[in-house]
Amino acid sequence: MTQLIDVPAGLKGVAAAETSIGDVRGAEGFYHYRQYDAAELARGRTFEEAWHLVHAGELPDVAQLAEFAKRTAARRALTPRVARALPAIAELAASDRPLQNLRAAYELVALDQGMKPWLDVSAEDLADQAIVTTAVFPTLVAALYRHSTGKSPVGPREDLGHAANYLYMLDGREPDPARARALETYLISTIDHGFNNSTFTGRVVASSGADLGSAVIAALGALSGPLHGGAPSRVLDMLDEIGTPGRADAWIRGALARGEVIMGFGHPVYRATDPRDILLRQVAEELGSPRLDLAKAVTTSARAAFAELKPGVPLPANVELYAALVLEAAGLPRELFTPTFAVSRVVGWTAHIVEQAGHNKIIRPSARYTGPEPRSGLW
Amino acid sequence: MTQLIDVPAGLKGVAAAETSIGDVRGAEGFYHYRQYDAAELARGRTFEEAWHLVHAGELPDVAQLAEFAKRTAARRALTPRVARALPAIAELAASDRPLQNLRAAYELVALDQGMKPWLDVSAEDLADQAIVTTAVFPTLVAALYRHSTGKSPVGPREDLGHAANYLYMLDGREPDPARARALETYLISTIDHGFNNSTFTGRVVASSGADLGSAVIAALGALSGPLHGGAPSRVLDMLDEIGTPGRADAWIRGALARGEVIMGFGHPVYRATDPRDILLRQVAEELGSPRLDLAKAVTTSARAAFAELKPGVPLPANVELYAALVLEAAGLPRELFTPTFAVSRVVGWTAHIVEQAGHNKIIRPSARYTGPEPRSGLW
Repeated sequence: MTQLIDVPAGLKGVAAAETSIGDVRGAEGFYHYRQYDAAELARGRTFEEAWHLVHAGELPDVAQLAEFAKRTAARRALTPRVARALPAIAELAASDRPLQNLRAAYELVALDQGMKPWLDVSAEDLADQAIVTTAVFPTLVAALYRHSTGKSPVGPREDLGHAANYLYMLDGREPDPARARALETYLISTIDHGFNNSTFTGRVVASSGADLGSAVIAALGALSGPLHGGAPSRVLDMLDEIGTPGRADAWIRGALARGEVIMGFGHPVYRATDPRDILLRQVAEELGSPRLDLAKAVTTSARAAFAELKPGVPLPANVELYAALVLEAAGLPRELFTPTFAVSRVVGWTAHIVEQAGHNKIIRPSARYTGPEPRSGLW
Repeated sequence: MTQLIDVPAGLKGVAAAETSIGDVRGAEGFYHYRQYDAAELARGRTFEEAWHLVHAGELPDVAQLAEFAKRTAARRALTPRVARALPAIAELAASDRPLQNLRAAYELVALDQGMKPWLDVSAEDLADQAIVTTAVFPTLVAALYRHSTGKSPVGPREDLGHAANYLYMLDGREPDPARARALETYLISTIDHGFNNSTFTGRVVASSGADLGSAVIAALGALSGPLHGGAPSRVLDMLDEIGTPGRADAWIRGALARGEVIMGFGHPVYRATDPRDILLRQVAEELGSPRLDLAKAVTTSARAAFAELKPGVPLPANVELYAALVLEAAGLPRELFTPTFAVSRVVGWTAHIVEQAGHNKIIRPSARYTGPEPRSGLW
């Protein structure tokens, strides 16, 4: 029998691949995309600049940015074939499974585009598939949302940025610039974050030579898993339940006593601070949110309770708490928080898929058989 | 910086999880499901027996088999909602992407079933989702195929076995028992086969807590990758190109000289013989195929050429060569070979998803960042 290589459960700490897209430095509370501090990018750049950076490897100059913005905006609209098929998906969609709805809608785009295995596709065409995919995500989310609320879809506007156009397609009005910019900051900050479960899923599928759409579809499924994290909608549910700042302490201690997880705290990589927490707290404060006092009370209470009840366990506030406040204040309904995460993360997924394709080895580990010996003789 | 654990590229040889579903013993040319020699199961049992075995862990007795057959047959039909939505998928479907078509169709089933994350689902309901998924695959494949050929779908018959009913739904006639049995043998033999790329994909997605449908959908994408293997349709293309037994030798040597891969030979695990090759060769001989002489000539020529040109490299005939002959003789059109593989493999995928759920740890490896150092200061 071949010798198997033993590693920690869940492949924890295993270097499953090499990447130059970005890195998360947990101990330093720092992450970057292509050498650029991601929180700084989120603060000072547009979504299109960050998107270009993550895919092309460098920030665009003025001419490149104008061309990239034009090129991506031109791919936002659904083709007539997809637009015709979408109501069939919308009728089966359920509001408590927004990622599944988005995925089923994106299947139509992948079919319509006739995406072929990347092994049979030029680098230019693969890059184009990544652009179409990312460009169309907000259009699909908005169209499904409007279907679910009995409204007709609103087509994209090419003159708006990615984030502003997303808000525009949701409610048919050009959004307030501050709201659009807050959403844009959130989107940039969540483009990529190491080998989380969905990014790894995308690379595993891409490693089989499959088309980009298959890998993105797989990643969407992984993102829907409650253990994946990144579901700030659950934070709002928690804040609703707590109600007022004065109740935060008792609620947190009660939940911890029942052995429950407190949404918005703890991260597998960050030990002290999550830079996205710091960034999005600032954004929430600048934009304003009726929940700011409550969020602060929850943070203070949680920190005190963790220090007392779980000493030595690092449970920094993570991206979810203030992301929830930012997304809500930007005007997004709660059931769109997770698909909105997908709207940004698809930039990272597609970059990883393209990187995997450029330097591929099929990802095919082994399993250790732990059952009884095969039966011999007659049975 | 945290120390990363280095492993071979593609996680080759890494024990990524434990399983008691089955094992592949490459050196012995042997594989089993739950202790039972898989080739023997394929020879002597029904698909429903093997399906029950893989999921319940034991072969059913007569009463259990009758109940399981009834239970699974009852889940074959599409619900009216899915049947109504299917034409929208069928219109976008393309014959060269059969797995993508099946996947988009199955998305409708997953939406319609309202599949929730397994974390929120009882073991009974999860087992039921696995049954619905497996039961409905042939119905979806057949309905899409009939749409593509301008015919109305034929609904399932509950009185036929899984394989016979699949053939029945394809051409609307009860199939010859020998053809149905040959297909059934193929299906049983391809239910599971270690941690191939698609099975691993399903487990990675399931490890996030996602619903069974999301994991199956991800696995379907992985299976569509040309590097995954298991695409016997390409064997027929090759046999068509070779044409006659007398041309096999020159064709094989020419292809090898051009550095091409010969379809139907070589396997990452089996070194000497692939037990599925032996099994399906027998089935093809019993059922009869006009391509038998050609397949034998190709095997003989390939063996001689490999021994001469690639001495020491084990390139046994794999499952694909005779699978192609069996599927063709059973009456399946070439473009359905890959979805037919999915029709059986989904039993293995869903068993692995359920196993992962029963003993879960999120699969979340690390990546080694190999790009330049982050920029500091102003940029």
